[in-house]
Amino acid sequence: MSDVTLAVDAMGGDHGVPVTVPAVGRVLSRHSSLHIILVGNPDVLAPALAKAGLEGHARVSIEPASEVVAMDDPVAVALRQKKDSSMRVAINLVKEGRAQAAVSAGNTGALMAVSRFVLKTLPGIDRPAICTAIPSAKGHCHMLDLGANVDSQPEHLLQFAQMGQAVVRAVDGLSQPRVALLNIGEEDIKGNEQIKEAAALMQAAEDLNYVGFVEGNGIFLGDVDVVVCDGFVGNVSLKTMEGVATMIGGMIREEIGRSWWRKLSGLFSLPVLNGLKRRMDPERYNGASLVGLNGVVVKSHGGTGEAGFTSALEVALLEARRNVPALIRDAVAPLVRASEQPAS
Amino acid sequence: MSDVTLAVDAMGGDHGVPVTVPAVGRVLSRHSSLHIILVGNPDVLAPALAKAGLEGHARVSIEPASEVVAMDDPVAVALRQKKDSSMRVAINLVKEGRAQAAVSAGNTGALMAVSRFVLKTLPGIDRPAICTAIPSAKGHCHMLDLGANVDSQPEHLLQFAQMGQAVVRAVDGLSQPRVALLNIGEEDIKGNEQIKEAAALMQAAEDLNYVGFVEGNGIFLGDVDVVVCDGFVGNVSLKTMEGVATMIGGMIREEIGRSWWRKLSGLFSLPVLNGLKRRMDPERYNGASLVGLNGVVVKSHGGTGEAGFTSALEVALLEARRNVPALIRDAVAPLVRASEQPAS
Repeated sequence: MSDVTLAVDAMGGDHGVPVTVPAVGRVLSRHSSLHIILVGNPDVLAPALAKAGLEGHARVSIEPASEVVAMDDPVAVALRQKKDSSMRVAINLVKEGRAQAAVSAGNTGALMAVSRFVLKTLPGIDRPAICTAIPSAKGHCHMLDLGANVDSQPEHLLQFAQMGQAVVRAVDGLSQPRVALLNIGEEDIKGNEQIKEAAALMQAAEDLNYVGFVEGNGIFLGDVDVVVCDGFVGNVSLKTMEGVATMIGGMIREEIGRSWWRKLSGLFSLPVLNGLKRRMDPERYNGASLVGLNGVVVKSHGGTGEAGFTSALEVALLEARRNVPALIRDAVAPLVRASEQPAS
Repeated sequence: MSDVTLAVDAMGGDHGVPVTVPAVGRVLSRHSSLHIILVGNPDVLAPALAKAGLEGHARVSIEPASEVVAMDDPVAVALRQKKDSSMRVAINLVKEGRAQAAVSAGNTGALMAVSRFVLKTLPGIDRPAICTAIPSAKGHCHMLDLGANVDSQPEHLLQFAQMGQAVVRAVDGLSQPRVALLNIGEEDIKGNEQIKEAAALMQAAEDLNYVGFVEGNGIFLGDVDVVVCDGFVGNVSLKTMEGVATMIGGMIREEIGRSWWRKLSGLFSLPVLNGLKRRMDPERYNGASLVGLNGVVVKSHGGTGEAGFTSALEVALLEARRNVPALIRDAVAPLVRASEQPAS
């Protein structure tokens, strides 16, 4: 397999190097053709590399960056003031062609703004989107946008659909992913015009396997591969999933702790609960793609651990190998040509 | 306690009388001052009452209705063609003062349209909303709107907040419920103006304990009592909850079925899983209120069973006893007076 280089914002996220460096060690040991450029403060990185047994590793290098984008930094600060941030420098490496993808656990708004500023959007894409895999009853689907855009217009939703389809083709190897539009049950409700228009655009789009509306519960049924929605709605839905899963996890723990008999039961139920945990594991599903840019950028959850950051690195590696940005560019090319030609 | 009469659409929902009539039997046995008017086809109702041991019950009467609103009937059909539907007749009974609340498991869009047409909205309320209790880590919160309105403007969101506060005061007995506005994490994102405006209105509102933004996962943390959102977003969030809970339930069953050891584990873990089920039970949380109308109308989930429909009847009884519509009218009265007075 041809070599791939990932630029890793080593300083970003809630934890920084104690999470990012060991995760890099894990992923390097799995993929012999993978190179990593760790971006950050060399004085912090050198001891972390030594601790992780990666000192002098032939496929690891350090790219210095003097600043860090804080989790609560406003977008304007990240964009205009911290021009030597580990996040910015990692994305610059993609822009310069020294890396094929950048990964950061830094703040989402800043990552999107900096990525957009440095890499620019692909031709035909008005708004980049955030896309991630969501577990379902039969495996997973991909959902976008998860918070990069609000008030998305029908043509944006169509672009999200094209991008989602390209991602699923590339990473899941499905030739005709089933693409659905997130909607609510009531068909006749006032104000649903945008959704109806978006549905009409998707229906008419060539080479898009649009299968119709899906409601919030339909995300998890395993009957669709791409769920398209506005970023406000998508973000609320994503956070709702996290909230319900966390609450159920907490309730299981509380129920187990309720009595000695329950504790014993809990012990016996460990295989079941561990099986459940494995399937729902947020770390396993960590790694959201910023799609629609001239380059691969993957956002890791800020609070994730080593396993989660490893998942995000795997997502970036796969998307870089498959060259997802080129696939998206090809997918939206007909839309670009149509808009460039005078109406006949 | 003073007597209350509920008008029950006995024919609505996926199951009709086999669910509604036994549920009525349950709730009658719990509340000695409760009267029920069952609305529907007498030829169907009479044998169902006999089967449920309710024949000749002193606190049950039948109100004939010749039609039924089907679950997939368009709103226009329910509103203009089926004027003698069990749903419509039940709501008419509230209008006429013969009942203090109506309960239906029929289709949501039709129920909202018919309720609005027959009962009218309260002064100061532009748009009625759908409100329900949502389980949280520490009990529950109430969330609205769950799908009656899309493209809600800031002043509508303020009205939802006032209504939600009135509901929680009435049914949970909290004097100063914590009211939050559902938002997404990114503060600087383009297009968030409506949410910001709504937040400013809520902050400025007298007698509203507005505590700020909450994200999708914050619904379940138990730190807020009322979550305010647009109906599109709220419906997606609600259906997402249902979807995740159903998926996790299915995964637990699958994990238990995976091997003989797991089956044994599953048996031992029954107390834990039953405890979990009790706390998450959708039937226990069944019963959404259509708030902002001149009367109490409660919507039951269409596919719910006897226990779920009983919960919906309990919601209606409580809201009727506390006269929630009058409380909402009082809560929004200052807004009405403000809009009637010329600006000073």
